[in-house]
Formats: sequence, C-alpha cells, structure tokens
Amino acid sequence: MKKIILFLLCIGLSVNGYTQNEDEKQLKEIYNQALTDGKAYDWLNYLSNQIGGRLSGSLQAQEAVEYTKAQLDSLGLDRVWLQPVKVPKWVRGTPEFAYFETSPGLSTNVPICALGGSVATPLQGIKAGVVEVQGIEDLQKLGKAKIEGNIVFYNRPMDPTVISTFASYSGCVDQRYSGAEEAAKYGAVGIIVRSMNLRLDDYPHTGSMSYGDTPVSKRIPAAAISTKGAELLSTTLKLNTEIQFYFKQNCKQFNDVDSFNVIGEIKGSEFPNEIMVVGGHLDSWDLGDGSHDDGAGCVQSMDVLRLLKATGYKPKRTIRAVLFMNEENGLRGGNKYAEVASGKKEKHVFALESDAGGFTPRGFSFDCSDENLKQVHSWKSLFEPYYIHLFEKGYSGADIRPLKSDDMVLAGLRPDSQRYFVHHHAENDTFEHVNERELELGAATMASLVYLFDKYGIVK
Amino acid sequence: MKKIILFLLCIGLSVNGYTQNEDEKQLKEIYNQALTDGKAYDWLNYLSNQIGGRLSGSLQAQEAVEYTKAQLDSLGLDRVWLQPVKVPKWVRGTPEFAYFETSPGLSTNVPICALGGSVATPLQGIKAGVVEVQGIEDLQKLGKAKIEGNIVFYNRPMDPTVISTFASYSGCVDQRYSGAEEAAKYGAVGIIVRSMNLRLDDYPHTGSMSYGDTPVSKRIPAAAISTKGAELLSTTLKLNTEIQFYFKQNCKQFNDVDSFNVIGEIKGSEFPNEIMVVGGHLDSWDLGDGSHDDGAGCVQSMDVLRLLKATGYKPKRTIRAVLFMNEENGLRGGNKYAEVASGKKEKHVFALESDAGGFTPRGFSFDCSDENLKQVHSWKSLFEPYYIHLFEKGYSGADIRPLKSDDMVLAGLRPDSQRYFVHHHAENDTFEHVNERELELGAATMASLVYLFDKYGIVK
Repeated sequence: MKKIILFLLCIGLSVNGYTQNEDEKQLKEIYNQALTDGKAYDWLNYLSNQIGGRLSGSLQAQEAVEYTKAQLDSLGLDRVWLQPVKVPKWVRGTPEFAYFETSPGLSTNVPICALGGSVATPLQGIKAGVVEVQGIEDLQKLGKAKIEGNIVFYNRPMDPTVISTFASYSGCVDQRYSGAEEAAKYGAVGIIVRSMNLRLDDYPHTGSMSYGDTPVSKRIPAAAISTKGAELLSTTLKLNTEIQFYFKQNCKQFNDVDSFNVIGEIKGSEFPNEIMVVGGHLDSWDLGDGSHDDGAGCVQSMDVLRLLKATGYKPKRTIRAVLFMNEENGLRGGNKYAEVASGKKEKHVFALESDAGGFTPRGFSFDCSDENLKQVHSWKSLFEPYYIHLFEKGYSGADIRPLKSDDMVLAGLRPDSQRYFVHHHAENDTFEHVNERELELGAATMASLVYLFDKYGIVK
Repeated sequence: MKKIILFLLCIGLSVNGYTQNEDEKQLKEIYNQALTDGKAYDWLNYLSNQIGGRLSGSLQAQEAVEYTKAQLDSLGLDRVWLQPVKVPKWVRGTPEFAYFETSPGLSTNVPICALGGSVATPLQGIKAGVVEVQGIEDLQKLGKAKIEGNIVFYNRPMDPTVISTFASYSGCVDQRYSGAEEAAKYGAVGIIVRSMNLRLDDYPHTGSMSYGDTPVSKRIPAAAISTKGAELLSTTLKLNTEIQFYFKQNCKQFNDVDSFNVIGEIKGSEFPNEIMVVGGHLDSWDLGDGSHDDGAGCVQSMDVLRLLKATGYKPKRTIRAVLFMNEENGLRGGNKYAEVASGKKEKHVFALESDAGGFTPRGFSFDCSDENLKQVHSWKSLFEPYYIHLFEKGYSGADIRPLKSDDMVLAGLRPDSQRYFVHHHAENDTFEHVNERELELGAATMASLVYLFDKYGIVK
C-alpha cells in the first residue's frame, strides 16, 4: 500500500512538475517576446504623439478608433470589430484663466482648468470672495450665510501617508466629483478644487464631475487649481480673508455623438463560448496625450492578444481585447459592452482591466470568490521571477465592472502607483513619462494571467 | 500541566503580539514621517541643482562634502566628522567629438564620451578602421591581424530579457571595464563601447575602466558611444566594412588629491561598541548631476538618522550614516572606511548600502548567513503594507563590501530597476527624474530595517 501511495505521489508530482514547468516556459516566452519585440510602446507612441488627447466625441478619439482597429486588423485575429456607442461630447474651449486679488489692482495669476462636464462661467468671468473648506462636510458647518455669493475652494489634499496613491485619491475625489452640486445648494457661485496630485507643481488636473439633479439654471462652474496654486491661495487667505477670486472658462456640453468600442478577438479552440476580456479605455482627457491614462492600458491589452499568438499559444477560450470608449466622462463604452454581452447572452468568465498607468507592474487586485483568489495564489511562484507579488482582493476597473457576475473573475493590473497622480488628467500625462520596459512588463504580466486562467479555467 | 502550557503560551503570544504591534507602530511612524516631512528630497535638490556632478577630486565633490557635513551637523547627532582619504583625480576636459566616414568627406557625427580613467587621444584625434565585436572573447578569434591599427567597437547590448537590469548590466560591463586593456594586447589604437543602456537614445554613458598592468605607453583611449550611435555604426559597418572612425578626447589623470568620507553618528544606548552603517556614495560621474547615482543613496542614508531621531527612537547600537567618496573610480572611500574601522578594532555588525537609484523600493538583497536571512524573513509581514517584498541573498554594495566579515549582515536596498540604466552615468541622471515619494519610501524602508536589526540584534 505504501508503495502504491508513493507511486501515485510520484506520478502526481511529476505531472504537476511537468505542468509547472510548461507554465514557467510559457511565461518566460511571453516575457521574452514582450521585452524583445513588444509592440505596445510603438502603438502608444502613435496614439500619443500622432493623435494626442482623445476626449470622447473628439476628432482624436475617432482617429484612435480607426488606428487601433487597423492595428488589430493587422494581427491576424479571428475577428475585429467596432461596437457602436453614443458618447457625451464636452469641449473645453479656449484656455481657462484665473487670478486672485488681494487688493484692487494687485492680482496673482493661478493655473486652473475646467473640470470635465462643468458649465462655463459667464462671458466676462466670475469674481467673488473665497471660502476655503477641507471637504464637502464643511459646507453644512459654514451654512448658507457664509457661502452664498462666494466661490467654494475645496482644499483637502491627498493623504501622503497612504502608500497606495489610489487609496489616497479615493479619499479626496468626492470634492471634485460632487463639490459643485453640493456647494450650489448653499448658494455658491462657483467652485475651485485642489488638484488630485500628491506633488506640489503648477499643473491643474481635470477629471469628471457631476451636477447630480441640480437644475441647469442652478449649475455653477467648477475648476481645478494646481497644487501650488492651492497652497498659495490658502496661505493668502490666512492673511486676508477678503481676497477676490476671478476665473473664466468657456467649456460647453454638446449633444451626444456616435463613437465606438474597438474589439479584437481570438476564438477559443475548446470553449469558444467562454469569453475572457482584457481591456483599457481609448478615450482620455484633453490636457495631455493620455499616455498613462489610459493609452497604456489599451496598447497593453492589444499586445496581450499579440503575445499569445506570437508565442504560439492557442487559447481554449475566446480572448477579447476591448478598447472601451468614454471611461473618463460617462462610462458609456463599458456599459454598452456589458449591455450587448447580456443581450447576446454571452458567457463572460474573466475580465482584466489595465487603467492605472504604464508603470512597473506589481500584481493584480481581484474582485472574485475566495476559491478563485486561492487559485491565483497557487500561481504566485510562477510570477515571482518577474517581481510580481501582489495578488489581493480589491477593485478591478470601471469599464469591466458592469460585466460583474458571481461566477466570473474580475481583475485589475496593479502597477507601481507612486508617480501616477503626478500625471493623471494633467498636461504632463505624456509619452516621455512612459518607460518602454515598464509598459511591456505590464503587457506580459497581463498575458500571463490570461494564459493561466484560460488554460486552467475558472474553478468553481 | 495543560493549563500551565496554555498560560505560558498566552504570555508568549501576548508578548509577541505586543512586540509585533510595537514594530508595526514604529514602522508606520517612520514611513509617515518620511512621507510628510522627509528631508531627502530637499537635500538632493541642493546636491543636484546647486552643486551638480561630483567627480572625485573636483570642486563640486568638495562642496558636497561641506554641504552634507553641515546638514548632518544640523541634525543634533552625537558626532559628525570627516574621514580623510586620498582620491584619484581624472578630468574629462573639453567635450569629446566623434564621427564615422563612409567615404572621404561623407561623415556622420555620433555622440561619445570618454570612459572614466581613459587616456586622451593625440591632440589631432584618432582616425582608423573599425572592428566590431560582441565581447572581449571575440578578440582572440579575430586575432592581431584583423585588429592591429584599428579601433575595436564593443557592441554586445544589455540582455533585455533579464528582469533585473543590474543582472543585465553585469553581463555586459566587462566590455567597458577591461575592453581597452584587452584590445591593446592585439594592437588596437582605441576602443568604442556601446553604452550600458537598455533604451535606444542619444546619451553616451561613461563609467570606470581599467588598463590593468598595461604600460602607460601602450594605453589606448576608450570612449562610450550612445546606443543609437552604436546601432547606426553597426548597421553602417554591415554595408561598408571600410568605414573610418574618428574620435578626439582630451581627458587627463592628475595626481591623487585630498578628500573625505562624511560620517554622522548616533551613539548606541546599550551596545555603543556595536556599529551599524547605512550609506551611499557622495561622488558621482560628471556628465549629469548624479541624482540617482548616488545622490539618492546619500540623502536617504542621512534621512535614516533623522527619521530615527524624529520618531523618538533611541538606538541600542551605534548607527552611522557614511557618505563614501570615490566609489565610481577607485573605491578609495569604502576601502579607507574599512581600513580605519579595522585599525581601531571597531565592531561592525551591520551595513546597508543604497546605490541602485532613488526609485520605488522593492526590498533588499542580503550578503549574510542563512540564520540572518531567516531573521529578516520573520519581519516580512511588517514590510508588506509598504509593498516591500524582496528579501533575497545577493550582492550588498561596493562601498560596504570591504567591511565584510562572517558575523555581520551586509545588505543592499533594491529599488525598482527598470529605469535605472536609462540614466546611469549619463547626462540625463538629473534631479527631475527622481520622484519625491519614491525617494522617501526608500529612506523609510532603510530606516525600518535598521530599526529592526538594532532592536533585535544580529542573531548568531
């Protein structure tokens, strides 16, 4: 009996050993291919430097749709198509302008930009007193008496002691998203929000905002101010509460326009009806060229398909790269993709999003069952040679979240986050801040996870 | 009996639990302090932007000695001093110049720089044919007949498939270090080495070289060429083996000059004779401002002392920050420090070096016993909240290695390495490529390891 057990154990070990070995080899091939012949960086160069910022509804967004479709077409996939989706069209207009006045005629310019979705100021701009707050919760304490007729200046900074800068961002971004809606209730005439940036610099960072159900006539203009501008304004306010703040922006919301998600697919050889998605968002804000947010995620997702093909791997399941449109100011692409998938009764088993910058990958966060997280943990040693250590439960991504169901795995690539909010939604989110190796390591890490889930399936 | 065991177990658990808790708290305080009130970035700003490149024997190196001593003086340490050390003085002279000629009068300029320690070319420069090799081992195959009178062009690139770029560097740097010595044996008149850089760009990367025991009269000039220049030269050579390469450099080696290691110390409260060192090197190459290599390591080491003090920790052992002079082209500072320590019979129990750039810390490599590595592994969970995962055996650092003994722990900080060789020894090793949070996270990670080894001692 002992001998039989020993024998079975040996078979078991050798089979596992063989499989582990095969997986090690496949991952090595994926990483080697990405690091020696990756295409993500070249694609990103084109998206960033030939096309540029790709705000939903813009000419550049349409160019990006056409370019990425053509590139996917050239990869010899089983199917490449455009999925129509109506998107909002918001346009910044001429550059914004702001200053504060400590006494009549004595003014200091500060860098601002309109938040995405904001209304314009009147043509002549707005000039008013400033009420500084550390968050929405301060509005009630101050009350209408102190806020009415003034500009609310939201100045709670991102918490520098939080190691993941995304967590720090989450703790602040309500000021940007809901600050105008809330301040309008107290009669504010406009809001200025400290940029979501841990560094002190001169770049204002835009981003989405919502007026909720505020009637159109009550909507007030909202702008972000650079972190240095915010510090200066705050310091000056401490010396002189009577200063006047002036700003002018002529952004405008147009009617929705036609756009597309871009999708490329490798048909599964064994389970073609089980679909695995890997994606990023093709739209970006308009100030920079959207290299980190989220050109990186798009070209990495495209490269996942290419890497699997280039290494000769034939997926059992159907693998799709989806470049979602309009993540930044509407999420229409993510919602449309899920709606179509549901309408067609497609069975999605896995989705992976890359929307946290093109920096050195550290691992993944998973929105999945404990069993599936355990499954991932069994692959940890395969990822260690590539310095991939994070396999935690957490948020996956905005575009794939509408797909969520109990029996699928949602995952988000987790690159190093320390530099991300230096660039996020700002003029300096540009190509030269992306490192080719870091970007390609991300693509290889994504392809490796896709390979493993495709090969072993999603355990129940 | 069972009850007694249970009781003892409970005491044990609660003591351990308390200690773990205390350590968690101390690490949190160190990281918080570094991220909210770190001084490393300000110090680096001064070193980089007010002083600049700090080649041994230069005025800037002396200014850096004075500046860092003054800063350490201001920290209220128990002792700050300068340790005299003679250093070599090599001077680049006027900018180098190079081109290749495909036919007389038809020339293409390429960016080069002299390797540190190289002799000059004759005043009028050198013009000769080019023999491309993939490494020193090719010289023997080609033999004197093909090499004599020509310039040897070492063009083996760093291997992009190696994930740690330091490992990739190790696999190439023999061409730079010994290339001239070896080529001279075959009658070469000069050498050109492909820059140690994984990226294709226009920056030549300098670095140390040695002529071994080649007589002065037989020494040939050695320069690095940018990676793009190397690709261009190699491609052109494939089309035309007869091209002539011209280069001119007027660097010069002077007599040794006086310089210093800069040392600051907190006296141990319980074991003052057990010394723990944390350090980086104060000298740098002359092309950039030496921000990553190794201004970062110096200011992090200084900040380790400050962080321990600022968080109210009183070390049991004596903690020294040592800013070593002349790591780049001589290692005189590291050798002198060890020599003095040995002469004074100082008992060093631990040394940690930061000389791998100011990027996001990933962990440490340890040159120590298995028992001590096990000790470190017992602290893993303390570092996880800070995304510090690497605790491996490996190389510690050039400056602390002369201290090595069997009963001490040598360690090297391991930051993310992907971008390092883009900047290393080149004109673009400058302050704007250092991220404040990444730099401070490194300082906090170092201080945390120092705290733990100080508190628990080095297990035997």
